[in-house]
Amino acid sequence: MDAIVPFDAVDPKRRLSSVLEPDERRAFAGAMLADVLDALAETAASTRVVATAPIDLDVPVAVDDRPLTVAVNDALAGGDLPTAVVMADLPLVTAAALDRLFAAEGDVVLVPGVGGGTNAVVVRDGAFHVDYHGCSIRDHRRIAAEAGLSTATVDSFGISLDVDEPADLAEVVLHGRGVAASWLGDHGVAVTTDDDGRVGVDRTPRD
Amino acid sequence: MDAIVPFDAVDPKRRLSSVLEPDERRAFAGAMLADVLDALAETAASTRVVATAPIDLDVPVAVDDRPLTVAVNDALAGGDLPTAVVMADLPLVTAAALDRLFAAEGDVVLVPGVGGGTNAVVVRDGAFHVDYHGCSIRDHRRIAAEAGLSTATVDSFGISLDVDEPADLAEVVLHGRGVAASWLGDHGVAVTTDDDGRVGVDRTPRD
Repeated sequence: MDAIVPFDAVDPKRRLSSVLEPDERRAFAGAMLADVLDALAETAASTRVVATAPIDLDVPVAVDDRPLTVAVNDALAGGDLPTAVVMADLPLVTAAALDRLFAAEGDVVLVPGVGGGTNAVVVRDGAFHVDYHGCSIRDHRRIAAEAGLSTATVDSFGISLDVDEPADLAEVVLHGRGVAASWLGDHGVAVTTDDDGRVGVDRTPRD
Repeated sequence: MDAIVPFDAVDPKRRLSSVLEPDERRAFAGAMLADVLDALAETAASTRVVATAPIDLDVPVAVDDRPLTVAVNDALAGGDLPTAVVMADLPLVTAAALDRLFAAEGDVVLVPGVGGGTNAVVVRDGAFHVDYHGCSIRDHRRIAAEAGLSTATVDSFGISLDVDEPADLAEVVLHGRGVAASWLGDHGVAVTTDDDGRVGVDRTPRD
């Protein structure tokens, strides 16, 4: 299995701006990418990163600053099938979950993200293309159906939990064991609980 | 495997009040419970419901109007082990996910809920007890550790997605195939997408 991980190396995770400064957002995005690459390295996948700017990694990096959908479709067209596309902001992903993803049968195997996204997809048929704009999981199901392709879904919280909003950071603090969780701990991001039992995150200034 | 499903039959899902009227919240909670019971019925589990008020179901119902933690611990103490405790508000749960839960090894097997809760637990040792107040997944890990019990976690979006907030309804509309998803469709709850690609739900008045 080939795997592509698209990565915004320039201005990632803008919705975290209320909690993290721009340089911190870049560092944290890199920490999440490291967790994804660590998990992929434990699988049999051959991984490459498609980044919007040069970045130094242990896997091959192609630089492509076009929009995500265009860059991924171009990378899919230029490689072999099957290929998996795995988002870079999945700090709870595990090799076990990825192995379940890679083993699932179907022309197109999808893992939704919380909030309507598509956090991972395995493409086994060139008639499929990605479209990450809007509520992409619906579009991906429709694209596969219109091309007459079979689809499957893999049930994994670790893959479905992408980090977009500050509330998502609480999940990383609570459940993460990798680079991103350590980064949050090192930068004073901790879980809070309100009177209704809802969790959030707060940040304590460092000395 | 015995399974207990605790259910608030009186005033469930208060955080959905902005979208659903009180009688609708009760009906929708019943629809989610039906999905959980349907999934459990496809497994080998022997299921009973612990409800805060009498309710007519195809499985045995015990009425216990005490707080959730007290009622579940009492039900655990009065039954055999292993016993699973599965929340009633998991409309994306599948029999396949539950079978993975039941097959996972460990004195205590946990499935976190989004936002720090504990959506399912398998208890194989009477030294464990539940405590659903606050960020319960942390407390359950601590309770198990203090009792010297081994723990495991099962990775399932279908179990981890409990419905508390209106935004959670979008996940049910997008991914649900059961009674709760049908109920939302019948009551005009549909997914919306804003300019940033964030999904939410809107409700169209019926004729």
